[in-house]
This record gives sequence, structure tokens and C-alpha cells, in this order.
Amino acid sequence: MVKTVGTPIDLRKIRVEDLFWKNEMELVRKEVIPYQWNALNDRVEGAEPSFAVRNFKIAADITAKRKALGAGYKEKIWPTDVFSLKPEDPEHPEARFYGFLFQDSDFSKWIEAVGYSLTQHPDPELEKTADGIIDVVCAAQQPNGYLDTYYIINDMSKIFTNLKDHHELYCFGHLTEGAVAYYKATGKDKLLKAAERFADFIDSKLGPEEGKLKGYPGHEIAEMALVRLYEVTGKDRYLKLSSYFIDERGKKPYYFDAEHPDEAKRHGDGERYHYYQAHRPVREQDEAVGHAVRAAYLYSGMADVARLTGDESLKAACERLWDNIVNKKMYITGGIGGTSHGEAFSFEYDLPNDLAYSETCAAIGLVFFAGRMLRMDVDSRYADVMERALYNTVLSGMALDGKSFFYVNPLEVVPEACHKDERKAHVKPVRQKWFGCACCPPNIARTVSSVASYAYSENEDTLFMHLYVGGHVEKSYETADILWNIRQDIMGDGTVKILCEKAEAKGKGEKPQTIAVRIPSWAEGYTVSCGSFRHENKKGYEYITGLFKEGDEITVTFDRKVQILRASSKVSEDHGKVAVSYGPFVYCLEEKDNGKDLHLLRVTADPSKARLKELDIAGNTVTAVILPGKREKAKEESLYSLYSESEYEDAELTFIPYYTWANRGENEMRVWVNR
Amino acid sequence: MVKTVGTPIDLRKIRVEDLFWKNEMELVRKEVIPYQWNALNDRVEGAEPSFAVRNFKIAADITAKRKALGAGYKEKIWPTDVFSLKPEDPEHPEARFYGFLFQDSDFSKWIEAVGYSLTQHPDPELEKTADGIIDVVCAAQQPNGYLDTYYIINDMSKIFTNLKDHHELYCFGHLTEGAVAYYKATGKDKLLKAAERFADFIDSKLGPEEGKLKGYPGHEIAEMALVRLYEVTGKDRYLKLSSYFIDERGKKPYYFDAEHPDEAKRHGDGERYHYYQAHRPVREQDEAVGHAVRAAYLYSGMADVARLTGDESLKAACERLWDNIVNKKMYITGGIGGTSHGEAFSFEYDLPNDLAYSETCAAIGLVFFAGRMLRMDVDSRYADVMERALYNTVLSGMALDGKSFFYVNPLEVVPEACHKDERKAHVKPVRQKWFGCACCPPNIARTVSSVASYAYSENEDTLFMHLYVGGHVEKSYETADILWNIRQDIMGDGTVKILCEKAEAKGKGEKPQTIAVRIPSWAEGYTVSCGSFRHENKKGYEYITGLFKEGDEITVTFDRKVQILRASSKVSEDHGKVAVSYGPFVYCLEEKDNGKDLHLLRVTADPSKARLKELDIAGNTVTAVILPGKREKAKEESLYSLYSESEYEDAELTFIPYYTWANRGENEMRVWVNR
Repeated sequence: MVKTVGTPIDLRKIRVEDLFWKNEMELVRKEVIPYQWNALNDRVEGAEPSFAVRNFKIAADITAKRKALGAGYKEKIWPTDVFSLKPEDPEHPEARFYGFLFQDSDFSKWIEAVGYSLTQHPDPELEKTADGIIDVVCAAQQPNGYLDTYYIINDMSKIFTNLKDHHELYCFGHLTEGAVAYYKATGKDKLLKAAERFADFIDSKLGPEEGKLKGYPGHEIAEMALVRLYEVTGKDRYLKLSSYFIDERGKKPYYFDAEHPDEAKRHGDGERYHYYQAHRPVREQDEAVGHAVRAAYLYSGMADVARLTGDESLKAACERLWDNIVNKKMYITGGIGGTSHGEAFSFEYDLPNDLAYSETCAAIGLVFFAGRMLRMDVDSRYADVMERALYNTVLSGMALDGKSFFYVNPLEVVPEACHKDERKAHVKPVRQKWFGCACCPPNIARTVSSVASYAYSENEDTLFMHLYVGGHVEKSYETADILWNIRQDIMGDGTVKILCEKAEAKGKGEKPQTIAVRIPSWAEGYTVSCGSFRHENKKGYEYITGLFKEGDEITVTFDRKVQILRASSKVSEDHGKVAVSYGPFVYCLEEKDNGKDLHLLRVTADPSKARLKELDIAGNTVTAVILPGKREKAKEESLYSLYSESEYEDAELTFIPYYTWANRGENEMRVWVNR
Repeated sequence: MVKTVGTPIDLRKIRVEDLFWKNEMELVRKEVIPYQWNALNDRVEGAEPSFAVRNFKIAADITAKRKALGAGYKEKIWPTDVFSLKPEDPEHPEARFYGFLFQDSDFSKWIEAVGYSLTQHPDPELEKTADGIIDVVCAAQQPNGYLDTYYIINDMSKIFTNLKDHHELYCFGHLTEGAVAYYKATGKDKLLKAAERFADFIDSKLGPEEGKLKGYPGHEIAEMALVRLYEVTGKDRYLKLSSYFIDERGKKPYYFDAEHPDEAKRHGDGERYHYYQAHRPVREQDEAVGHAVRAAYLYSGMADVARLTGDESLKAACERLWDNIVNKKMYITGGIGGTSHGEAFSFEYDLPNDLAYSETCAAIGLVFFAGRMLRMDVDSRYADVMERALYNTVLSGMALDGKSFFYVNPLEVVPEACHKDERKAHVKPVRQKWFGCACCPPNIARTVSSVASYAYSENEDTLFMHLYVGGHVEKSYETADILWNIRQDIMGDGTVKILCEKAEAKGKGEKPQTIAVRIPSWAEGYTVSCGSFRHENKKGYEYITGLFKEGDEITVTFDRKVQILRASSKVSEDHGKVAVSYGPFVYCLEEKDNGKDLHLLRVTADPSKARLKELDIAGNTVTAVILPGKREKAKEESLYSLYSESEYEDAELTFIPYYTWANRGENEMRVWVNR
């Protein structure tokens, strides 16, 4: 029987005061959230409009009319068979949906980020803005609870007729996640109630019971969202619906076949549902396939449901899929999705560096998945991957000034190829300001602003520290309320210092308290200094146990060196190459520091030759790694010639953290360097 | 002033009796030509129908009715805005064009191959079949000379309204090339006259004169074809029209803009005409861009016109484009076209091995271009490239049994990737039987069956031998008619033996005769044994001169070793890798001989370690090259781990000629091997 071993700590119990993450969170608060608000309102010059607020306003107006006129109000306003609409010569400008059909989720991700941000930085002005737009969103909700502006505006008679490709359940999921976050931050439940009503409506239309549609989401997220709703409301039906979505998925005959009989006839069998992870029941899946974001969201929901229902076989499926990803389908940067075709996982060990998709949102999905596995099993292997994805691909998704974003995170870039080779049309050599399909920037915002909820989890007698995010953490143990003051300097002196700042005894007995600190895979050794407190290592965590009182201190010091890494020989792309890492950061070469033609550089595989250097990148001081190497001398030669040994000159190679690349203009970059 | 220094010898003056090429030609004669005839008639089980003969028959019927009814016959039968039609639920099955709109060219390439084949192997039965279908084709010709079944069947009022994307002038070009070949082989001029009438009609509609359209072909070939027609008929207007097509191309305002004003508005400027090499006037082009077949056909036509008009600046453009291809854009196999997007040249030095397009037809185009450069300038650098393309990519296009074909010729294949990675959807791990768009198989047929015309050219006092194709060659010099008996064994004892089998003195004076033999770039040395005859090397050819008489013998012996080659360091794809060649053949590793995971193999760069071995491949004995190397031992390791030196075991690597790969079932292959 699967057990919950840890749940995230309420963000209001944490005050992040971290060397590294506070700055990222402030970027989100000061840059991304306001920018995004303007984007939602189509006020960003030069960026594609979002239409999100506009759509909600139009929908609210329609809903009001519909309520006033009852059946007299026409149901169908606009054809619903168009995926992305733009305001070109509209016949009904007042009542037309614009943008991608999942545009509502722009708002939902924003409100979620706002919620998290408010837990750390109260901001009445921002809260007022949020309440205002929540009023609009709620006004758009239909009397029956339905709340997706695409169908409200266009044609309510068509709802739930294209679960495969339209994103109603996706929009529902994001709405719910935003609503839960905002409720938990502010205690205001208006949006949460709207999400509940929408959930109840969905529950009345989809499910195993007779008369209901046997459908499930084409783009997963509702599974996770329903679990959040269950956890905040305690209502079983949400967990049941999530569980239903998970187990119905991929059953034969395929629901998507029934929904799209013409397509089904053309295609033959369910192979094409790989993209949706709906090619077979999830418990029978053992390879991560299809659209990487969808996949990671599904697996996250599966892990949630496995934990809450104690379902061993579902947990086993999660473990198989986890292993498949991290052993065969993940970039060293924690990115997933090797191919732009379907923004999808490629086949096993196919991890091209220059053609990578490695979508920011997919890495975020992997963080979600890891975080949820940790709730069932506090094992550092999950947290190691979570950290890898977060510190590298997720952060790479945002510029150091918080003003531009990567959707795709390649591991090797030659700008000329991005510009001239259509196979690399998806690879941008510099971050973009905003996308029409703006999934990644707000997704980064909600993830970074809630990083502490990935860093910490708890059960009744233990506080788990998965990532090193300094700050004050209130932990209520059975026998004491403790305020931990945690300071990390993992990239400085390599320490995590934990001070018991307050300890108020409570309850009965002498049951000791535990704080469990993850020992990262990148530590080549570590020491725990905790006086007389007991400590032991279990599954990569040091459990430090005792009856703590004010002033007690623990210091964990990681032996942290520059590391030279290799990929499995099965990854032909990385053959003969090495990568450099230091602490949680994967490093890369940039042309800016190393000149053009990075493929001509070779680096030593001896990490003892490394030295560190402070480097300024766009006003930020980062720790660069300097390694000796060689540069092949260019020679005058024809395209093909008799083999002759190349000549090399010594070169000092400057590696910078991967997440800081492309902050100094367009230039070459590579993570995997010739040895 | 550019001068013609050599023209191809009439194929009827050559009797090919070659160790290597005779077999290839016999494959074409016995397998490809009959197979293709069945394909043209839609009689190949399991292959996509060609519809070519069917379309001609329908068109002939329509033409007959049109002639009988005059203006009373309806002009428009079917909409013409569909690129590729299939016989699905046709409303007018009797009068509908099927297949790609360039389907007529299937016939034309076939008749061209038939013509060449008949010069070497008279075959009354085949000739009868050919005459029969020629009657049908000619019956389809409109009274005004127009002859393209797509428009004849569908809508004559729309002819020449889409020169950019419809292929009327392309079909005209192939028809003409086929007609010239058949005429030169058989002396029968029915099809030639039809081609002339079609050319005259085109000439009356397109050209610089007032009232004519200022258009030019979207898919080039008419330029070369008109030159052939000019050379066989002596009519200046064909050369003029070709010249016009070449110089009008890419002029502003763009003809294609005027033809497609809506597209032009959407796109803005002429950049998109790169695909058609129509982005700027050809004399201003210095980078080979766009669809590689189109490009090579255009450049071939340019070389023809430069030679015949003595145009230095056009020749200079040809030289620039040639240099750009061979120095920056050609695979070591002589393949061109680095990207599947537009079947096109990629940017300079971008030569991915696994994603290569390297279309068989594009390599054929490069052979054409090289052959035409040789007519202006007998320089072995042209013939070296011609040989490289022909012996490697062109031959790779056809299976050793002549029964299946490659369209795309990758330099590295992992079958799993072809099956699972949509980026490699164009790369097939085994040859296909036939394609709906069947450009390559008949193109191989016409090229292989006329290989002797690339091997030899002549001017009044010299016979040039560009490629080593043994046989009897009649050469009429000013002072003698000589029958040369040429035997090559370049892959055996490395010799070319030239015997003067007959010499009949004629004319006046004692002007000596010359035979010029190319010294290939792969010869590391050579000797000429020619008794007292004078010999000297000019631009890579040994010119052997004297007054030859019966029994005189010349032997040229090439010092031929296994060679280990490298690519320019600018080709990042090939960095750290080497390729193996022997004689004109580029070699490759196949899984069949070397096991799976070819990326784990490393080969010595020391060619002196090579030994040769006879190997049977699908019933053919080929010379394999064995080189010592190492195989990295597979180890149990996680996807990423701390660097440790790999372990290797000694391995004997077996290389086979590239053109023989994929004749033993589906398996891995690679040309560029880790050093």
C-alpha cells in the first residue's frame, strides 16, 4: 500500500530569503507578473496579443445576456471549427473569440503566480487587480458552471465534442490550479468556488456512470488540478474524477476514435494516440511518449492519484515511466522532448543537442512529476532530477532580466543554422519577448514563485529539504512548533546552515523532531555537524533527529567540485564529448567567451585542472569554470582531403552556467564539448 | 571568348564492353526499362500508379475530338488548381488527369533510356513498343503544338498561367531530351518533330518580344533540352529561347510575383524564390541555393549556353556556382542537397549525414553540370566530381538487382531513427520499389544507359576519356579514322589499356592524333607506357599524341591505394571522423559486417594498415576494405555519469562501397566513422 510520506508545506509558512532564488522570485514579481498582466490585456507593444482578458469580458457579457434572456439568447455565435482565430475583418467584433483556444489559461497561470507571489510579498494593489479580473472571469461562468470562453462565446451546443484537440479540460485544470493557489494565498474563495462549480459540471457530464461521456482530456492537467481541488476541499468526487480520467485513458475502443470517426477511419489504429499518451491504458505504459508536456502532466496526476488512493500498480507505472525518462530520454539539463515533431519525446537515447525541443514547460512538468514522486518516496534520485530540471532548463527559459523567454532550450546552437535551416526553425538563438502561444513564460512565473513548495515537504514529525532554498520555515511537529532559519550557500562555502530560531514545546511526550536534508548527487562527499543530535542517511537524505531548542544549529557541508560528465555510450549524439557541471548547474560554452566555431574546441576531461572565476553576465555575477583545452587551428583545405592530423593551439575554455546563456546577444553555444 | 573544347561522342560510335559499367547498363536494360514500362502502364502490383500512359491516351482522345469538333469542343473539363490527383470517386473517369502534374515526364525519361539502350543493344521488340507509345504521345499533341496532358485534359485555357509551380516547361524539357535521344539512336524523328512543334509553340508564347509572356520555367530543364534540340536541328531559335530563359530568370520585377500576385503580397520580396534559383539574375548568383535538382539543371543549361554563345560572364557564373557546390555544399559521395526542406541545398558547410537529402536526381544533375563544364574546359577537377557523384550517389540510387531505388541517399542510417523520428521520414533504410513521384528511377536509367557519353568527348584532333568505361570507340580524326579498343581494370591491376585496333588514314597531311586520359584525383601516382608517343599532362589529363597505327598500345597505370579522408574543419558534422575510399568509390560501414552501434567504432587513420577482401553482397562480388579499429565496450552506466575513460576492444572494420549498401536488408550504415 502506497503511503503519503510528505506533502508540500503551505507557502505561507515559508519566508524565502535565499541568496539565489529570492532574486529569481523578485524578477518574477517585479518583471514577469506586471508584464504578463499587460500581455493578458493586449497592451504589450510588438507582442502578439493574448486576447485572454478580452475573451473573458466578451464571455461575461454574453453570460449576462444569456441569463437575462434565457432560452431566447442564441446559442451559436461563431463557428467552432477554427483552432486559432485572429481579429481580421470580424463580422461580430463584439462577440468573437480570439487567440488560441486555450487562451483562458493565460489568465489562470498568471493568477496562480500572483497567488504564490502574495504569500511572499503582500501587495494590496496587485491583489486588487487580481480580484477585479477574478470578478470578470466569474461573471463569464455559465449558470451550469461551465467556464471556457471559447465555447461560451462561440457555441455552447458544442461543448465537450472535441476533448482530443480542444482544450476545455486543460483550461479547467489551469483555472483550478490558479484558483487553489489564490485561495491558499489570500483566503478568498470566489475563484475557487467557480472552479468547484466547473468541476461539478464536468463531473456531471463525464465519468463511468451511465449517460455520461466516457471521455478524458486531450491535454492533461485536469488530473493534477482535481487532486489539488480535492486536497483543498476534501471532496472525494474530485479525486474520483481524476482517477477516472487516468484509468479511462487509452482504453479500447478509443474514445478519441468515437469522437473523430472520420480521422479514425483514415488512420486505422490507435498508434497516433501516442501523442496524447492515450494509445493504451496508463498502467500498461512503460515508455514515455508523445507530447512531453502532456506526458509529464499526466504522470504527475498519476503520482497524485497513486499516493492518495494507495494504488501500488499505478505507482509502479509511475516508476517505470520515471525510469524510462531519466535513464533514456532526458537531456543533461533536465530537459525532455527530443523532437520538435509534436514537441515530443523521441525514441530512446535519441537526444540531439542542436535539434532539441526541450520545452521549458516540459521541464516544469518534470519538476511536477519529481515533486509528486517525492511525496510517495523521499528518495534523493527524484530530487536530483527535480533540481537538474529546475536549475537548468526551467531557469534557462527566462532571461536574467526577466524580460524575454525561451520556449525551446537547445543544448547546441549555431545562430546561422537557426536562421537558415528550417529544420531548426523552432530553435531561437535569443529569447523572445512573448509568444502568441504563451505557455512558457507564465509557467515559469508560477513555478519560480512557488519554488519553496518544491524545496520543502513535511509529514507530522519531519521537515524534508529537497532543494536548498534559504529562509524561515515554520514547522509544527507533534511536540513542538519550530521556526527554522535556514541559510544555504551551496555555491559559496558549500554549506546549508539550519538554525532553530524558535521552539515552542507543545503536546505531550518527548517525541523528537526531524529535519531531513537531501545530499545531492553532485556532492562528492559531505559532513554533518549537528552536535549531539542523531543523524543517519536514508535514500540520499540525512535525517537529523532530536529535541531541538532555540539556538541549536546544524551545518551540512557538501564537498562540491567541478565535475566532468559523460553520457551513456548509447547516446550517439554525445559520443566523444563531455559536459561540465558545478553544483546543481550544468555549464556550457558560449562564443562570447570562447570565440566562434565551438566544435573546434576540445576540453580536458580532468576536473582537477578547473578553476573558478567570477564573470559578469548582463550585470549579474556568475561563477564561471575555466578549463584548459585546445582549439583546432583552421587550415586552408579543400572540402575533402587526405587525412592529416589537425594542429591545435592551447586554449582556455570558459564555461558559464547553462541558464545564463544567450544573455549577451546572439552567439554560438554548446553544452557537450569535444574531449 | 569561351570555346567548345569537346562534345560528347555519339553513342552509336561507342560499344561499351566494360567490366563494371556493362553490368549496370544490362541491369537497366533487363530490369529497369521493362519494369518502368509496366509502371508507366500502371501494371506494377503494390506500386503507386504512374498514370502516364493513361493520361496520354485520354489526351489523345480529347485531341482527336477537339480536332474533329473544332471550337465546339469544350475547353474546360476539370479544375486545374489541384497539384496531385488520384482516382477517387471521379465524376468523369474517361477524361480526368491523374497523378502528379509532371507525370508526362515518366514517359519521357523512359523513352530517353530506351534510346540510349538501343544504341548498345538493338532490340526490335522494344523499339516497336517505343514506336507504339510515341504514336499515342504524338496523337495527344494539339494542333498548335502544345503537348502537356495535364492541361490538354483539364483546361487548355489555363496553359502557361502557372510557370512557377506547374511543370509544363519541365515536361517539355524531358520530352525533348527523350525525343533527341530516341532520334539519335534510331534515326526516327516522329517524336523529335513533335518536340520541335512544342518548342515552336513555346517560342511563340514566351520570350522578349512584345506580346509574349516574360516567363521562365519554375523547374528548370528546358534550358538544357533546348540546347540539345538546337544541336540536333541547327535551329538558332532554340538556343535563343534557352538563352532567354536563363537571362530572364530572377529579374525584377519578378515574373512569379506577377503570376501569383496574392502570394507575392503575402510574402513581400523575392527571397522565397531561392527555391527556384529565381531570386536574382543568374549572372549575379554565387551561392548554390534552393531545390538541388532544379539548381543543377539550371547550371547545366547555363554552361551549355555559355559555351555555345561564347559568353564569358555566364561561364564565370557557372564557375562560381561550381566552386560553391564542390567546396562548400557537396557530400563526399557527390550528393548535393543537405536538407529535406525543399529538397534543397542547406547553408555552407551544413552537411548533416543522417538528415541528408542528397537526392539521386540531384547527383545526376551534378553529373550533367560537370559534363557540361568539361565541354568548355577539360580539367580533371570537373571529371573528378562527376565520377564521385556517379560512382557513389547515382549508383547508390539503384539496388544491385536493379529492382528498387533510393530517392534520398543518407550518409548515416540507424533504421530505428528512420522509423521513429519524423525528422527522418524522408530517409529510408532500404530502397523502395517505385515512387508515385518517380523521378529518380527513370533518371538513373537514362544516366546509366548513357554513361559512355559522359566518359568520352571529342574535338577534331582529340578523344577525351573522362571516366574509365571500356569498349570500342570510333574516332574520326582529321587524318585518320581510328577504332580504339579500350580496356579498364582500375579496380583490379589499376590499368587503362588503349589499343589502336584499326587506323585508316584519310585526308591530307600528317596531323597527329591525340587521346587524352584523365588522371584521377584518387591516383597517388601513375605511369604512362606509350612507347615513343609524346605525352604530357595538362589540367589533370595525359595527352598522348602521335600518328597511331593498328596495334599501337598505350597503358596508363594508376597508383591506387585505400585512402583515409577528412572533411574540412568547417564541416562540424564530420569533425573527429574519417571516411574511407578506394579508387572512385567512397566506402561505408554496414551493421551486417560490423555489428550494431556503428557510432561506437573507431578506425585507424593509417591507410597502410588496410587490406582488401572479396565480399559477396547479394550475389555480387565486391572489394571490401578491412581496417583495424576499436569498438567501445558497452558498459552498464546511467544516462549521465562522472567522466571515465571508455574501454575498447580491438575490432576489424569492414568497409564496403557506399553504392552497395542496403542490399542485405535493413541495417545501420555510416560513411563518416570516428577516428
